[in-house]
Amino acid sequence: MARVLTPQNEDFPRWYQDIVAKAELAENGPVKGQQVIRPTGFALWERMVAEMDDRIKETGAENASFPLLIPQSYLSKEAQHVEGFAPECWTVTHAGGKELEEPVVVRPTSETVIGESMSRWVKSYRDLPLLLNQWCNVMRYEMRTRLFLRSSEFLWQEGHTAHATFEDAAAYNRRILHEVYQDFMENVVALPVFTGLKTAAERFAGAINTFTCEAMMRDGKALQAGTAHELGQNFAKAFDIQYLGSDGKQHHAWTTSWGVSTRMVGALIMGHGDDSGLRVPPRLAPVQAYVMTVKDGEGVSEAAAKTHAALRAAGVRSKLNDRSDVAFGRRAVDAELKGYPVRLEIGPRDVAEGKAMLVRRIAGTKTQVSLDGVTEAVADALAADQDALYAEALKFREDHTSDVTTLDEAIEASATGFARLPWDACGTEGETRAAASAVTVRCLQRADGSVPDSEDEAGLVALLGRSY
Amino acid sequence: MARVLTPQNEDFPRWYQDIVAKAELAENGPVKGQQVIRPTGFALWERMVAEMDDRIKETGAENASFPLLIPQSYLSKEAQHVEGFAPECWTVTHAGGKELEEPVVVRPTSETVIGESMSRWVKSYRDLPLLLNQWCNVMRYEMRTRLFLRSSEFLWQEGHTAHATFEDAAAYNRRILHEVYQDFMENVVALPVFTGLKTAAERFAGAINTFTCEAMMRDGKALQAGTAHELGQNFAKAFDIQYLGSDGKQHHAWTTSWGVSTRMVGALIMGHGDDSGLRVPPRLAPVQAYVMTVKDGEGVSEAAAKTHAALRAAGVRSKLNDRSDVAFGRRAVDAELKGYPVRLEIGPRDVAEGKAMLVRRIAGTKTQVSLDGVTEAVADALAADQDALYAEALKFREDHTSDVTTLDEAIEASATGFARLPWDACGTEGETRAAASAVTVRCLQRADGSVPDSEDEAGLVALLGRSY
Repeated sequence: MARVLTPQNEDFPRWYQDIVAKAELAENGPVKGQQVIRPTGFALWERMVAEMDDRIKETGAENASFPLLIPQSYLSKEAQHVEGFAPECWTVTHAGGKELEEPVVVRPTSETVIGESMSRWVKSYRDLPLLLNQWCNVMRYEMRTRLFLRSSEFLWQEGHTAHATFEDAAAYNRRILHEVYQDFMENVVALPVFTGLKTAAERFAGAINTFTCEAMMRDGKALQAGTAHELGQNFAKAFDIQYLGSDGKQHHAWTTSWGVSTRMVGALIMGHGDDSGLRVPPRLAPVQAYVMTVKDGEGVSEAAAKTHAALRAAGVRSKLNDRSDVAFGRRAVDAELKGYPVRLEIGPRDVAEGKAMLVRRIAGTKTQVSLDGVTEAVADALAADQDALYAEALKFREDHTSDVTTLDEAIEASATGFARLPWDACGTEGETRAAASAVTVRCLQRADGSVPDSEDEAGLVALLGRSY
Repeated sequence: MARVLTPQNEDFPRWYQDIVAKAELAENGPVKGQQVIRPTGFALWERMVAEMDDRIKETGAENASFPLLIPQSYLSKEAQHVEGFAPECWTVTHAGGKELEEPVVVRPTSETVIGESMSRWVKSYRDLPLLLNQWCNVMRYEMRTRLFLRSSEFLWQEGHTAHATFEDAAAYNRRILHEVYQDFMENVVALPVFTGLKTAAERFAGAINTFTCEAMMRDGKALQAGTAHELGQNFAKAFDIQYLGSDGKQHHAWTTSWGVSTRMVGALIMGHGDDSGLRVPPRLAPVQAYVMTVKDGEGVSEAAAKTHAALRAAGVRSKLNDRSDVAFGRRAVDAELKGYPVRLEIGPRDVAEGKAMLVRRIAGTKTQVSLDGVTEAVADALAADQDALYAEALKFREDHTSDVTTLDEAIEASATGFARLPWDACGTEGETRAAASAVTVRCLQRADGSVPDSEDEAGLVALLGRSY
């Protein structure tokens, strides 16, 4: 069989380009760095949205919608924030054929415009915590772009919350990090993530602490899959978010922000994909079971339709393909590319025997199953393969994570994976030196792998790696 | 009790402003004409999205995501389209601190950029129909804006499809009009709509036919709630969307586009709201049952929590409010404002009797119900009140729609509602004359109320009215 994708071992970036194009996930738009997310790619994002949205709401946050355009002057209200984001902005200068009085920017992120709303909505301690989230598009100017991973426009959720105390803000932010992001990434996307604290150099512009989920891709590089920021009182002071406390005095609120974007689709592709295409974890998969006819024949279409209906009735996200005008081989290759967890192939001989061929994308097996017991066989395969995919990714990460004691060793180990180094042996100076080799501190953890409250804790370890 | 809203009869536009503010639905953003949709307003839109999205997918369309920014030159490729939209565009001229080579516009609608993708995706008749939809934000410059109804930025879905023949395009477009839009508006939002054909003057820029759903607001004005356009081969020719037919020849495709926006939230407010606030139809309502404690007392919180849990377990979207730090009266007024279909008030005396007070927002009744049978009582109320709200809106529309025979009568009748006039008695000339009185032809229908294929059919009637 002719190869469909450049093999990962031969040229991983090329493999990525190939799979994004051939699985019909996305392509470049006409304006630099913008992307068209095609239905197959978008369906993955839609499922991610559904899973994350449930978890976000479970924490008590509510969705809202804030404006796309932000006055330039808003960005300037928080000194570090404007420094970080102003160079990346897309600027609108005209509307309705006339020049605007003040240029406005397409939101690169919405702390400022939401901060302005919060200042009006928060009056008393009774209004806190205020827990908001929005699903939207943002734009950041990028010199070098790559579909899903780094694009001028991307889709994301951005959560923004205000709290009465630092402690409440910090505790909520940790819930987002673990109960929303980590739980989603590990239990739905089947990608193990290291959670930890970003160093000052990698912190969000305007935050006092940035926490992160770092996933390992199959080329050993890190992908920052989600971040949650403690903003302290920086934005509350810049936007005057004050509340009357139960003590009868005015206080500035403590705010947080947190986001996960369409980069997550890139993480899925590079975290699980192989030389035949995507491998989508069953719990995430928009199409869990793909029922396809091998070729025309007596009762074939009927058996396929019946199987499809039975799967749907059993709650399986099933898709039917009985297009005999496209060759079976081509459709099977396409199914591999798109990474449907299980495929049921039904041909004339199968129908005669009351069977179907069950092809498992993750287990890599092909077995005949009885059409009578097909829903149970599919359910079993989906459950087992969700776990198997996670276990495989975890083993890969463990095999590619080294404990080292010097920065040089860490830089060397980063060529193939992550390096775990005592933070004392690295420090800000080591961080700068590593950057020269394109190696960064992905996050800081405690020795037991848990997430520290600040960089100042003793005995921290740094996880280093190359990154997307 | 002090009045919360300006009464509708006193000043309808003021009533609208009041309710949008006091029910915390939306407010103006910092940039002219942009809006902040607050959680209570956004939850309504989220439910609309869920209901429409299901129906759109049922027709076979798939979601995708196309870029926010469109090169100005794209708009110019279809002559009527650029004429209609260029004056409304917001223009980005700079990015990353540098001037762009070609100015780009924030999408006012996406026929052009999607047409460009379609031209690459459609090769053979086997690729057709191509059925795409996206949920996104668009921007149009507006001089006078009103929250939800006319804003510079709004959220919507825009469907874009390509077909092999005119007939297939037309048939699919009608499915969208009736099976998606009309069904959603009537059976979920409980608003009867007239479906019909727009006159040439009201047609979408670049379409050959525009079909519409027109709803009546409680001030007798029309609100265009959704439109579906037959684009003929105009965009296919402008963007070179061609396919190889089974006849071995190249043909231009036939395309359609169709959209419903956050205006629909405005339609809900003005179609059902009364002097106490919103009235949300149960099938749409993000909160169907609102369980609230009257005041603290033995077992009150527990009974409320138990009732809330029982309702949720029964599949009712229930919300619990047991905040005794806010006066009961204030919370009850807020519940009326937000239009929760049913409210269960539980106080110490109720608990002692094993009862709760069931307050129905639409029926306007208060009755004691047994806590044991509360889920059945709520389910019955929700079902009955969905129907009652639709019946009320239908009766209101019938009472405010007059059959007339002259244009002058039509203009006069439009002061309080819709006028139905033979199209022969109006025509393009009459349309121009009516416009001077701010009266427009909302749509053309056949005498039996069905939707004509074209303006040229004999015996059509025109529905006239003032509009939002």
